[in-house]
Amino acid sequence: MGFLRFQIKSQQNNARTGLLKLKHGTVKTPELMPVATKATVKALTPEDLNKLGAQILICNTYHLMLQPNADIISKMGGLHKFMNWDKPLVTDSGGFQAFSLGLGKEHAVGKIYFPGQNYKQSKPHGKSTIRLNNKGIYFRSIYDNSRQFLSPEKSIEIQEKLGADMILVLDECTSPLSNKEYTKKSLERTHKWAKKCLDINKTDQALIGIVQGGHWEDLRKTSANYIASLNFDGYAIGGSLGKSKKDMHNVLDWVIPLLPHNKPRHLLGIGVVEDIFSSVERGVDLFDCVSPTRMARSGYSHICPPLGKKKNKFRIKIKSIIYRSDQQPLDPNCKCKVCKSYSRAYINHLLKTNELLGYNLISFHNLFFMLELMREIRCSIDENSFQNSKKKWLEKS
Amino acid sequence: MGFLRFQIKSQQNNARTGLLKLKHGTVKTPELMPVATKATVKALTPEDLNKLGAQILICNTYHLMLQPNADIISKMGGLHKFMNWDKPLVTDSGGFQAFSLGLGKEHAVGKIYFPGQNYKQSKPHGKSTIRLNNKGIYFRSIYDNSRQFLSPEKSIEIQEKLGADMILVLDECTSPLSNKEYTKKSLERTHKWAKKCLDINKTDQALIGIVQGGHWEDLRKTSANYIASLNFDGYAIGGSLGKSKKDMHNVLDWVIPLLPHNKPRHLLGIGVVEDIFSSVERGVDLFDCVSPTRMARSGYSHICPPLGKKKNKFRIKIKSIIYRSDQQPLDPNCKCKVCKSYSRAYINHLLKTNELLGYNLISFHNLFFMLELMREIRCSIDENSFQNSKKKWLEKS
Repeated sequence: MGFLRFQIKSQQNNARTGLLKLKHGTVKTPELMPVATKATVKALTPEDLNKLGAQILICNTYHLMLQPNADIISKMGGLHKFMNWDKPLVTDSGGFQAFSLGLGKEHAVGKIYFPGQNYKQSKPHGKSTIRLNNKGIYFRSIYDNSRQFLSPEKSIEIQEKLGADMILVLDECTSPLSNKEYTKKSLERTHKWAKKCLDINKTDQALIGIVQGGHWEDLRKTSANYIASLNFDGYAIGGSLGKSKKDMHNVLDWVIPLLPHNKPRHLLGIGVVEDIFSSVERGVDLFDCVSPTRMARSGYSHICPPLGKKKNKFRIKIKSIIYRSDQQPLDPNCKCKVCKSYSRAYINHLLKTNELLGYNLISFHNLFFMLELMREIRCSIDENSFQNSKKKWLEKS
Repeated sequence: MGFLRFQIKSQQNNARTGLLKLKHGTVKTPELMPVATKATVKALTPEDLNKLGAQILICNTYHLMLQPNADIISKMGGLHKFMNWDKPLVTDSGGFQAFSLGLGKEHAVGKIYFPGQNYKQSKPHGKSTIRLNNKGIYFRSIYDNSRQFLSPEKSIEIQEKLGADMILVLDECTSPLSNKEYTKKSLERTHKWAKKCLDINKTDQALIGIVQGGHWEDLRKTSANYIASLNFDGYAIGGSLGKSKKDMHNVLDWVIPLLPHNKPRHLLGIGVVEDIFSSVERGVDLFDCVSPTRMARSGYSHICPPLGKKKNKFRIKIKSIIYRSDQQPLDPNCKCKVCKSYSRAYINHLLKTNELLGYNLISFHNLFFMLELMREIRCSIDENSFQNSKKKWLEKS
């Protein structure tokens, strides 16, 4: 068993707050982890993250094993020291890249496939660059096209060298467009890999098992029962999550009741406002999502309803010419340092001229917005007003 | 007269320290101004600049009149508020762009032309995109190719709207490859423009006159005498500065003795280590230079001798593979926050993956390095040890 203590603080129906004690500190849950794919949260400094009150970050095994590589990070004293972050860290296993560089690329879809949405326009689309068998995943490096291989053994070995507080088992994240037969076959492999990772891990890093099974009730329940039967330190729910938000909710409704009550639950790769409410409501404790910083790089700023647009009430496109001489802050209701000191006009100017400060300021604001939301959610659960908070956020517009 | 008080604190031969009181604060001189061309010092936040102890920044009239434009900045409460900087600011006049988008481009040279160096390889080279007559400078916008015009009147009007503490007269910065006949004709025009700017400026912004005249002794002396005869708040020395460092030193030796002793002197666009020593020695008080942040974006880090390379003792190329697993800080002798917390290996990784944090960290370090150098120089003049300091910096290797 790794170093992880999880204490449930209060509960309202299935929503709960907790204290997740890890080697590098305690995380108040539910919480959203900012994503530091390549050992940095894009466009932000560790000082920014501390100011934001970020409690825990998630890095990516696949990316870091390629560049700089696990041995270099280990030589530098591990990922914490390498990236100057002394609070808790998670590394994912590389299993998500089996999807994003594999069938996700071939099908041009994300973890949820919304029929009718033309993903091929917005998602990178191309031939899968991975191969997969029972031994592991054969990748090509996105840096030099070299052959790379991740097995359960290799993923754990690399994650040990990186030295995060929590690590994930190697899995195959399947595509929402894969059929049941493939998903079932893949699930059996994923289960074998999970057991193997558990047997191998001898460090004090907390090891998280991952439930897969696509959007099929029997597969998801089989997976939840099996993974829950293994003595992991915590449990994650991986994609695919179906073809609608309803499908995703079904997955959570099938899986969560089968997971141990007193262990933390992480919904992998999900984290926009609506999904956070519907998942916390069902008992999810941890989220990770690139959305706040990715939105920032595309010039979108988070905004509280009712100030957003009807179509998208949680964001506005600051890069748009309509903000060119707008004296207001990004979000007039926000208390972050960016909203205290900068106008939309200035940030519009920075984006227009491609100045790095623009990405820094919006990324800071967007993460502040999301982490404030998480604080509000925790507070509402503790005060037995989660449903009011949900209603306030999701109904006003 | 604008709001500017200059008090000389101590002097060692021609080198001097002073206190330059401006509307938004007092600047200890000699000082190097970080360059905030488009109302941001590239890759740094105003918080970074405050931590660095930056005293004064310089912005660019040409760039800001095009994007977002002077009226928007004025509506936002002026440049200080727009960019969240409450300390002194300078705006240049746009005269440098008459060179950089004009003959500088056509000749593919900088302010000093070193014969033999193949500038055409490193400098953007092409046809001049400006036209110039006695009325002013006709530009094309680098944003939308629209026709733009700057006259002395227009430059002052725009600089008034921007609202910096110190503003510069419109001049024509000539090319080191222009002949004497052209330089002389240009100088007459520059002098007329200088007088016009002085007559127009009615605000409390301090107005700085610019001495031109290329690398001809008679032209430089004529210019220094004429500009000094006008009642400017301070004096700047503009390019071109000849065909060698010696030529630049000659220009300073001709010009500075003719400028009022009790007014600040700004050497425009110059600011690498060697030039700072040789110019402070001759009585220069203010510098501005893009080098620290531009170097950072190319992956070069400042380093104290004797740790640099023989060929270039003040910098190393952190992007180089030799630093891939180097545990040392950028400069082992540096006390900046970047050198306290990050390894060369991490910053090499950030540059390799094009992560914005990399540019932020090296820019911070490089400016810290230069501003520390300026502090050391001020201290050495106050303590009568400027020559020792110069020797220490320029001779060790």
